[in-house]
Amino acid sequence: MQSTTSSSDSLAALAAVIESRLPARGGDPDASYVARLLHKGPDAFLKKIGEEATEVVMAAKDADHGGDKAKIVYEVADLWFHSMIALAHYGLSPADVLTELNRRVGTSGIEEKALRKVKAREAEPQGDPS
Amino acid sequence: MQSTTSSSDSLAALAAVIESRLPARGGDPDASYVARLLHKGPDAFLKKIGEEATEVVMAAKDADHGGDKAKIVYEVADLWFHSMIALAHYGLSPADVLTELNRRVGTSGIEEKALRKVKAREAEPQGDPS
Amino acid sequence: MQSTTSSSDSLAALAAVIESRLPARGGDPDASYVARLLHKGPDAFLKKIGEEATEVVMAAKDADHGGDKAKIVYEVADLWFHSMIALAHYGLSPADVLTELNRRVGTSGIEEKALRKVKAREAEPQGDPS
Amino acid sequence: MQSTTSSSDSLAALAAVIESRLPARGGDPDASYVARLLHKGPDAFLKKIGEEATEVVMAAKDADHGGDKAKIVYEVADLWFHSMIALAHYGLSPADVLTELNRRVGTSGIEEKALRKVKAREAEPQGDPS
Repeated sequence: MQSTTSSSDSLAALAAVIESRLPARGGDPDASYVARLLHKGPDAFLKKIGEEATEVVMAAKDADHGGDKAKIVYEVADLWFHSMIALAHYGLSPADVLTELNRRVGTSGIEEKALRKVKAREAEPQGDPS
Repeated sequence: MQSTTSSSDSLAALAAVIESRLPARGGDPDASYVARLLHKGPDAFLKKIGEEATEVVMAAKDADHGGDKAKIVYEVADLWFHSMIALAHYGLSPADVLTELNRRVGTSGIEEKALRKVKAREAEPQGDPS
Repeated sequence: MQSTTSSSDSLAALAAVIESRLPARGGDPDASYVARLLHKGPDAFLKKIGEEATEVVMAAKDADHGGDKAKIVYEVADLWFHSMIALAHYGLSPADVLTELNRRVGTSGIEEKALRKVKAREAEPQGDPS
Repeated sequence: MQSTTSSSDSLAALAAVIESRLPARGGDPDASYVARLLHKGPDAFLKKIGEEATEVVMAAKDADHGGDKAKIVYEVADLWFHSMIALAHYGLSPADVLTELNRRVGTSGIEEKALRKVKAREAEPQGDPS
């Protein structure tokens, strides 16, 4: 199940494993962590996305202060992994996400528009949002 | 330990319970959930803050679609509770947070400044941030 | 509008300000940051809750490495503040949250049950959740 | 810059674009959104990871209630995109993340261990964590 040819294959291979754990595909919640998350429903894996995002942030802050950068890789993997569980639940795939990312890289002018927005924001006075 | 007089007392009472679970105060990680979180250190309770914030968001989205609003109260309580564990670890208190909130309510002009910032942002074209 | 008597009054005072910004109460999105968030609807302020929770985590990690603890207070205030905007939108109040927190402090045995759950979890082998 | 051969190439192509925006590579914060985030430093893009994770959760909850699933794809792309900005800052790459994900797919027994942990947790009584 492990890819030796390209990294895209590893996302596809992982997606295939995750999809095989879907309840509709016979995934057994008593035999698989992924099947159990999928069986429990959205709140179970969506909560994990919030938790794993926080762990990425903590690992990055630790790296800022001399911590091991490998921890960041591990936590981003966890974040992407749980994102893929959500994608599978909704009948989506990492290929859909890559297509969207591709579209952005290929679309000229997008970064400039986003930047103008950010610069306008920064030109404004800071204030407590009360 | 329960307040009958004012809601501020309940925050102070809860803070006192949490502080009594600090390792330096003899909190026993084998006898108390809070003591255990404090004993494990920041990553343990900071991760919970990210997770509980996500649960607030999910409860709110459910309420948007007919779900029970009491769930929001429960999840905000969880979020504030775990925030208070963090405050205790760093020698801070909910009273410090209330003072800061008070300062904002009492400071005229703050909302207007924050608003100008937001309006400038919205006047800009939207773009994918690639 | 600022309380001089108790910290509970500051939460109530802040909630009163926020509630006065509700669209149904005539809150003007062109004149108030809170009115604008409430006018935009749940996604606008729920997104802020996720963002502010992350900022609490970052301020805490910085404090672990010598950063200013006052930053934690500021970020927790932001997190609670945006939680209160959500509460107002759903017709809820910080008093509801304090009642729930009160209930927990006053309910014996709760911490022990939560702790048994955590201890069972820790007794298990760690594994990558693939 | 857009890949036509495989989805792995799109991650690599996007990483190359992001890396070209690094300050050390001459990325211009006045001309690029990514360069600006990288120039501002970790807190700027880490905060976005927390925010984008929340947006994934909101899009998923909306889809649960009839919303457009394409929104989930868009938000996961945003989440992965900002994860990749963090990776670039720390000298890491999506290839590192894919290697870690690959390792998990290829490691037998991992899911079973994670599952035993989850089942033990579920066997315990639920309690408010006060």
